[in-house]
Amino acid sequence: MEGVDYLGDERNKAQFDVEAMKVAWAGSPEAFEVCDRMAKLVANDPVFEKFSKPMLGRKELFKNTLRKAAHAWKLFNDLHLTEEEAKWLRHYIDEPNYTDLHWEMFVPALEGQCTEEQKKKWLPLAKTMQIIGTYAQTELGHGSNVQGLETTATFDRQTEEFVIHSPTLTSSKWWPGGLAKVATHAIVYARLIIDGHFHGVNGFIVQIRSLEDHSPLPGITVGDIGMKFGHGTYNTMDNGVAKFDHVRIPRDQMLMRVSQVTKEGKYVKSNVPRQVGYATMVSVRQTIVADASKALSRAVCIATRYSAVRRQFGSRNGGPETQVIDYKTQQNRLFPLLASAFAFRFASNWLKSLYTDLKQRLQVNDFSTLPEAHACTAGLKSLTTAATAEGIEECRKLCGGHGYLISSGLPELFAFYVPACTYEGENVVMLLQVARFLVKTVSDLGNKQPVGTAAYLGRVAPLTQKNCVVQTAEDWLNPGAIVEAFEARAARMAASCCQRLAEYKSPEEGFAELSADLVEASLAHCQVIVVSTFIRRLQQDIPGKGVKQALEVLCYVYALFLLHKHQGDFLATGYLTPKQASLANDQLRTLYSKVRPNAIALVDSFNHTDHYLSSVLGCYDGNVYPKLYEAAMKDPLNDSDIPDGIRQYVQPILKQKLHSAKL
Amino acid sequence: MEGVDYLGDERNKAQFDVEAMKVAWAGSPEAFEVCDRMAKLVANDPVFEKFSKPMLGRKELFKNTLRKAAHAWKLFNDLHLTEEEAKWLRHYIDEPNYTDLHWEMFVPALEGQCTEEQKKKWLPLAKTMQIIGTYAQTELGHGSNVQGLETTATFDRQTEEFVIHSPTLTSSKWWPGGLAKVATHAIVYARLIIDGHFHGVNGFIVQIRSLEDHSPLPGITVGDIGMKFGHGTYNTMDNGVAKFDHVRIPRDQMLMRVSQVTKEGKYVKSNVPRQVGYATMVSVRQTIVADASKALSRAVCIATRYSAVRRQFGSRNGGPETQVIDYKTQQNRLFPLLASAFAFRFASNWLKSLYTDLKQRLQVNDFSTLPEAHACTAGLKSLTTAATAEGIEECRKLCGGHGYLISSGLPELFAFYVPACTYEGENVVMLLQVARFLVKTVSDLGNKQPVGTAAYLGRVAPLTQKNCVVQTAEDWLNPGAIVEAFEARAARMAASCCQRLAEYKSPEEGFAELSADLVEASLAHCQVIVVSTFIRRLQQDIPGKGVKQALEVLCYVYALFLLHKHQGDFLATGYLTPKQASLANDQLRTLYSKVRPNAIALVDSFNHTDHYLSSVLGCYDGNVYPKLYEAAMKDPLNDSDIPDGIRQYVQPILKQKLHSAKL
Repeated sequence: MEGVDYLGDERNKAQFDVEAMKVAWAGSPEAFEVCDRMAKLVANDPVFEKFSKPMLGRKELFKNTLRKAAHAWKLFNDLHLTEEEAKWLRHYIDEPNYTDLHWEMFVPALEGQCTEEQKKKWLPLAKTMQIIGTYAQTELGHGSNVQGLETTATFDRQTEEFVIHSPTLTSSKWWPGGLAKVATHAIVYARLIIDGHFHGVNGFIVQIRSLEDHSPLPGITVGDIGMKFGHGTYNTMDNGVAKFDHVRIPRDQMLMRVSQVTKEGKYVKSNVPRQVGYATMVSVRQTIVADASKALSRAVCIATRYSAVRRQFGSRNGGPETQVIDYKTQQNRLFPLLASAFAFRFASNWLKSLYTDLKQRLQVNDFSTLPEAHACTAGLKSLTTAATAEGIEECRKLCGGHGYLISSGLPELFAFYVPACTYEGENVVMLLQVARFLVKTVSDLGNKQPVGTAAYLGRVAPLTQKNCVVQTAEDWLNPGAIVEAFEARAARMAASCCQRLAEYKSPEEGFAELSADLVEASLAHCQVIVVSTFIRRLQQDIPGKGVKQALEVLCYVYALFLLHKHQGDFLATGYLTPKQASLANDQLRTLYSKVRPNAIALVDSFNHTDHYLSSVLGCYDGNVYPKLYEAAMKDPLNDSDIPDGIRQYVQPILKQKLHSAKL
Repeated sequence: MEGVDYLGDERNKAQFDVEAMKVAWAGSPEAFEVCDRMAKLVANDPVFEKFSKPMLGRKELFKNTLRKAAHAWKLFNDLHLTEEEAKWLRHYIDEPNYTDLHWEMFVPALEGQCTEEQKKKWLPLAKTMQIIGTYAQTELGHGSNVQGLETTATFDRQTEEFVIHSPTLTSSKWWPGGLAKVATHAIVYARLIIDGHFHGVNGFIVQIRSLEDHSPLPGITVGDIGMKFGHGTYNTMDNGVAKFDHVRIPRDQMLMRVSQVTKEGKYVKSNVPRQVGYATMVSVRQTIVADASKALSRAVCIATRYSAVRRQFGSRNGGPETQVIDYKTQQNRLFPLLASAFAFRFASNWLKSLYTDLKQRLQVNDFSTLPEAHACTAGLKSLTTAATAEGIEECRKLCGGHGYLISSGLPELFAFYVPACTYEGENVVMLLQVARFLVKTVSDLGNKQPVGTAAYLGRVAPLTQKNCVVQTAEDWLNPGAIVEAFEARAARMAASCCQRLAEYKSPEEGFAELSADLVEASLAHCQVIVVSTFIRRLQQDIPGKGVKQALEVLCYVYALFLLHKHQGDFLATGYLTPKQASLANDQLRTLYSKVRPNAIALVDSFNHTDHYLSSVLGCYDGNVYPKLYEAAMKDPLNDSDIPDGIRQYVQPILKQKLHSAKL
């Protein structure tokens, strides 16, 4: 029935103040207010309707996206939105498009890599969108390894120009969003060559299209790289391929903040330290961790609400069947994911402060915390994106067969989310970078005390000697016991890797040979960070009745779930006994019962609109079945009882006249 | 270049006879011959082209599928194919459609549940496709729990008819393939009601559409349930919803083999034991395990070939970068999946013999092995489908960014495969069924000696006392040591669950409370089965130079990878020491080096055609990059340099005239 809240009873069970939890999730009352306002602005604007996306062909889909992007830009100007508000507006529109690349890659690259003079020319054009830019680094045959790029930029002293060229098919730029059909300009990364000498890979501003008629400029072959995973997802974006045939650009379109080429063709490095780029990387990865928590919270919200609506088995005396959310197997799969969404949220909030701190240090040429900050963000990027991708798919499975329908919202969310595991640093490569940091940190312990998230490694000796003192299941409800367990396991794994590395002839050979173990040690280190951050957050003030208590339960669920999942590590390193591991698991079961009454209110705290969730299974009022039916009826195949093809290809079979049919 | 085999060098490294391995994979020379012939028949027939699928809208996609199905039926008749050949023909067409339901559910249900008289009427019609059938069990609000179905079949003694009715929205039949637009008949499961009394859920043959003009019959509302995960995948299938408004069918359209309703309205059970249905379930699940090995082999073939083509990092002195397949982290993710494909293949072959044995026993009313066979197939269904779904996605990630392109073949393979985790018994529900069997088996040990795959549980006492004797990494290359380790771990986990269950007031309460642990014990039991089956297969004769040796390496990889992944279990149960677990891991690394030279030839042994793989990354000749480029150019968005929407929605922004544009 219209207007009935089928989840009302569930909401009444909550043991905390939902409005206060919304603020805790958002980070602050101000953050909550902006998000809430922008989410509603989008949800109530018919231009941003997104239900029909999966049914559109590629061309219509793309056109529809261009319309939304233009409408958003109009809103930005008409409503005089701040940059913060504009960011949230784009977020809630929930549709990748060329403006993402323009605002999140092109403009920041100009800001970070241009000289003051270059900025004066290019930034006003970009910020008013008189030019639209993209970021062209990866090539058909080359991904993460920037040094392997093949595109060349050869300096022509005669004309003071760079000649941008794609010498091979594999050197074609491949993947940049917006490049295929929209961008007028691109920052192209290429091997700088002067007089036959290679001077490293540098960025160049290359105009791609005419600002008059939008056609590609001479010498540039550009196109779309084709469909990607999912229906809407990234198919709304024109990821592109570009080949350059001796395309000439003026000398001053090389990004010259860090290094320059003079008129005379001399390659000169400026006094700006190269490390300034790292702050940007930390900032981008902080956003990725925040996005992980958002994506996971969407999936968990859908699965939790539907698990409370759906009933299956367990009927007694003809009464209703049991709510699926009451099954322990469902709780054991769902509640740790709910806890993870909060854990990642707090980790991303904390990363913001790490970024601020790092930026301030770099401004005064203090690079001391850089390796630790770099390892920390690389690791959290890997941990959170991998767990979120898996978590979304798990939530889809937790919705049973109906989770396979596009109208559940989950298939598209998964297809949309998974590239996060690969872009901005492939996840296993990221963990190997963390491993290099860990190995270096442990090896240097004699000389240097580790800082920040690696500080605990300074206590590797006591952490190797002390064993866990837990004796009862209740003993696990102790932040100190939890943190020590995670630290001891991670420190022991790192130390053990270092010991074994020493057995190899060369460090490189050892590193290659033991890489799978190093990856495991890195993950253990990253889990220390997420668990400790969650615990530290709980030691701060959190207003609202019952809010802190509810979060404490989730924190323990997160930690003890990880402990059980990785009990092999905890036991192999000898910090825990099998009995202690088993007690942790007993405690975990007890905690699930404490999450249960709060479950619906906890997912309400994400404050997701029905528009944003875009799921008939996850709608706020829980009125699932009429919505499923209604969504089904909109499929194009339901336009007619006897769709095209039946008369031609089915009736001849039924009437045994296939031999004379035209197939 | 055309005609060059870019993987030729890799093929030359193989240390075994590829043709003999193809036979080992297929199961027999005859099986290989049929598969090979049918695969080529499909690959060379332009009607079965499938590259364009992701670009078609739902209606065109559906029409295209109907055309393929008609063409396949024509081929079947024209070429006088056997049923075995027809099955492989459908398999290689690789596109779900209504004929799957007709041949794999409707016809077998008629064969298994009709009386002889009913068979005489319905089977000739079905086998010549004068009628097209589907299988309508699940409802909008009801999945696996058959007893929860709401549709009613009320006997009307006056007219000797059943009245089929959908009393609620949630009782709508929902999911049956072919129901929405094609099927003329359905086997509808409904609550049988006679004189107000409920007589269980029974099956009824209900005509859905006119055989004249194909329109739905009066009282039947039928439609499509909407788009599903992926582009082509199951969107080629018209999964349907049907509501019945007092639809009358003659009494003799109830499936009457096991129970009947007489003219007088008496409900009578026949002397056919209900258990005969279980043989069908075992047969269906055997097919699912076989399908898992096929799906995983496709993904592994793509990822392995591309990993040998793709190079990244590690360039020395300007030479080529390192082949991705040479990185240990890549091997550690890829080779266990390659080994799993073979493990599941041999498990499915063995399940065939289990099915034959069971069928023979049931014919002479011997039900003694039924619980064990049921648990075994339920467990292997769960284990293999879960591992395959995860494995496909892992293979996609192993292809880096390009794996996200539809043209890689992997996104569609994943979206196509994942429902296997949910249909025919949700995977966690399946493991809980295994758990009930394990608990019962262990509890009954005093009275009954377990048989077949559960026989080792009869040795639970010695398995609990004996500990692993491995002292070196080489000691792990011993089938006896491997099997004992898996048996000891599984037996100890099952025994421990039983012990803890006894502490609860009621067995049901304990079972619910400990369900997460029971699921883990079940998985351990299923791993015993797969590992032992692989080992037993290797104890048989396997012809061909080096074939058995190559398979032995894979068998150890499979077992030791599982051992490492679940080392928490092995350590917690105390069978292994941390040192022994670590030695297993050392041995695993050594084994990867032995897999490496064989990798390409091993995936060649699957004998997949380029058509079947449908992947630019996985093509036989390894000529990846031109194929990627060519596939991209076919995207509809590349029809024009300036696609629809640019003039309307992008140029006004660039020219700063958005305020006057019509959005």
